Amino acid sequence: MSSSDKDQHPAEQLKNLRDAIDRVDSQLVELIAERARITAQVGRVKRSLQQPLYVPEREQQLIAARRDYARQQGVAEDLVEDVLRRIIRESYKTQSAQATATSQQLQRPVVIVGGKGQLGQLLTKFFVNSGYQVETIDKDDAFSESLAKRAQLVLMAVPVNVTLRAVEELPELAADCVLADVTSIKAEPLAAMLAKHQGPVVGLHPMFGPSVHNLAKQLIVVTHGRHPRNYQWVIEQFVNWGAHIETISAEQHDTAMGWIQAMRHLSTYTYGLHMAEENADIESLVQLSSPIYRMELMMVGRLFAQNAELYADIICANQQQFTTIKRYLERFSAAIQLLENGDKERFIEQFNEVKAYFGSYATQFLEESESLVQLADDQRFRR
Amino acid sequence: MSSSDKDQHPAEQLKNLRDAIDRVDSQLVELIAERARITAQVGRVKRSLQQPLYVPEREQQLIAARRDYARQQGVAEDLVEDVLRRIIRESYKTQSAQATATSQQLQRPVVIVGGKGQLGQLLTKFFVNSGYQVETIDKDDAFSESLAKRAQLVLMAVPVNVTLRAVEELPELAADCVLADVTSIKAEPLAAMLAKHQGPVVGLHPMFGPSVHNLAKQLIVVTHGRHPRNYQWVIEQFVNWGAHIETISAEQHDTAMGWIQAMRHLSTYTYGLHMAEENADIESLVQLSSPIYRMELMMVGRLFAQNAELYADIICANQQQFTTIKRYLERFSAAIQLLENGDKERFIEQFNEVKAYFGSYATQFLEESESLVQLADDQRFRR
Repeated sequence: MSSSDKDQHPAEQLKNLRDAIDRVDSQLVELIAERARITAQVGRVKRSLQQPLYVPEREQQLIAARRDYARQQGVAEDLVEDVLRRIIRESYKTQSAQATATSQQLQRPVVIVGGKGQLGQLLTKFFVNSGYQVETIDKDDAFSESLAKRAQLVLMAVPVNVTLRAVEELPELAADCVLADVTSIKAEPLAAMLAKHQGPVVGLHPMFGPSVHNLAKQLIVVTHGRHPRNYQWVIEQFVNWGAHIETISAEQHDTAMGWIQAMRHLSTYTYGLHMAEENADIESLVQLSSPIYRMELMMVGRLFAQNAELYADIICANQQQFTTIKRYLERFSAAIQLLENGDKERFIEQFNEVKAYFGSYATQFLEESESLVQLADDQRFRR
Repeated sequence: MSSSDKDQHPAEQLKNLRDAIDRVDSQLVELIAERARITAQVGRVKRSLQQPLYVPEREQQLIAARRDYARQQGVAEDLVEDVLRRIIRESYKTQSAQATATSQQLQRPVVIVGGKGQLGQLLTKFFVNSGYQVETIDKDDAFSESLAKRAQLVLMAVPVNVTLRAVEELPELAADCVLADVTSIKAEPLAAMLAKHQGPVVGLHPMFGPSVHNLAKQLIVVTHGRHPRNYQWVIEQFVNWGAHIETISAEQHDTAMGWIQAMRHLSTYTYGLHMAEENADIESLVQLSSPIYRMELMMVGRLFAQNAELYADIICANQQQFTTIKRYLERFSAAIQLLENGDKERFIEQFNEVKAYFGSYATQFLEESESLVQLADDQRFRR
């Protein structure tokens, strides 16, 4: 504040300060616009160089440098990281994936079985953009033997409940052809592919919906099958498109999906059903919700804006989890019983056992979720 | 791009563009620092004017103006709103609440019963900062009759399981003294206060934890008791401190809390217990989690970094909900049965019934949750 400001009446000072904030905020908008113009140019140059859109190291380094600078400037580092990540996320949003082909054999086609499905179409687009010849086979198409002999990759992108049959019905593939699938369960499809084809086999699970514009930061789970060196180019292709790869055994994958998909979706579905049948008053729940409850409400409600059949299929594909889920219901009944009996001591004892199980994740999750909780809270104030 | 840029090799262009991004990002940090310096001045001026820290209209107007400007500059409006809200949230974080007292009777004390508890201490701080005389009574303190006759407000901030007894044990208050509580259930405490005291009575439920630095945007639920005009100053005081007020009947409040607190906390608790007893492999769940599942995992894990006894008390205070929760468990069993029988049609039918129940909230929640989901996704990439 200059000395002339000091002579001002506080109300006038307040007005001047608010004008100053408005000017800073306008400059902020201009900077964001300028950054967007530059990143659009980066996108064009990268396409001409056929370089990947998303380079994790560059992003980490960019953020680390700006965190350092924030510290120097006396600004909270997490604030700067949050703001930058939000802006960067926007810049990836609409750009299309483009990267050099990692295969040397662009004269041999990539065959996408189920290529007319949503995920099939998306994968087709990516392979075509990177210069591959792509042939799509859909449910009414024949997969000719001559195509099977030429294919360098056969990618199964059919619904989970028909994957096994579709694998069995494949014609004989060239010995060096890679056979891969993108089913949300892995053990059975992988076993079926290994039985069908003696060449390289790999199971993939893309953990994202077909609405993504590009694969920047999207997670793809890899479960190894046979001859990893021969399908390494497929994994590298996904990395070039920006994907984040996690590798795990098919069995561990399926166990984890029992939690991540079956348990998660089934309990969310039942929660919504319960609210509907109890006719819970959503208006007053929204009105009174704490940020965390608002998040829960969103997570439940959003499921019902999506595809019923898809959820039914995902849950049913993880039927092996149902036995475990039944034990969850027993534990739930027991917990109610405990509290009805007023046995607070046992509740606290159990609570501490679970706390020990979560270990350092408990506090880590508490800290990480803080920004989510605050964002959920901000949602209340949006128009 | 200038014409000289066009002559550059693309790799060199890319380097120059990246340098330009780094410059823009550094300017962004500087702007955030400048804004923080201005808002700190605003805080000082507001304290001298005894004006509230958070003024909803000013914030709405500021954001609306910058959204307009974003549109003019060709930047996504939601991006600008998200960035501004994040920066504004930071600026409220550490400022202490300060506002003019709304009571005319600063010579008469505010008495906080349970004033040594966490919430009691927080409320004490706020009232003291705004110029009130505050007396705190804790469990071993006597509430003298002379203090009771002078008090202009008696605020019950004792644990939920002792509120009723603490109300009954109050000495006789002055006829114009306001009796209020901050318990997480409302019907019973409100009835007890109305029976005890013939003057103004109001039930309050602050929907935030005692770790907040100020009340900017924090939700306080008001359930009216008796003589609203006489306790209007108390509500206005909370508004001056920045709180957001929602008014509802005590019964509706308790029904909603049955969902927001009992159902929510009990199912989260049981989910954690289930994971612990099944010895679910958290590492692989974290490794493979989709952003939404990661959110769920955070929401479960974070509970166990908190106070076991507090959760036991909150859940037990909403025992009326247990009958409803038992029906939830029945519905859950029925849903599993349905899917085990392969009755996908009935599942989809029910799904659509729930979708109808959620109405426009389903898509609204899907849209609102998108930014949360993306933020949860970003968390994966933080160091």
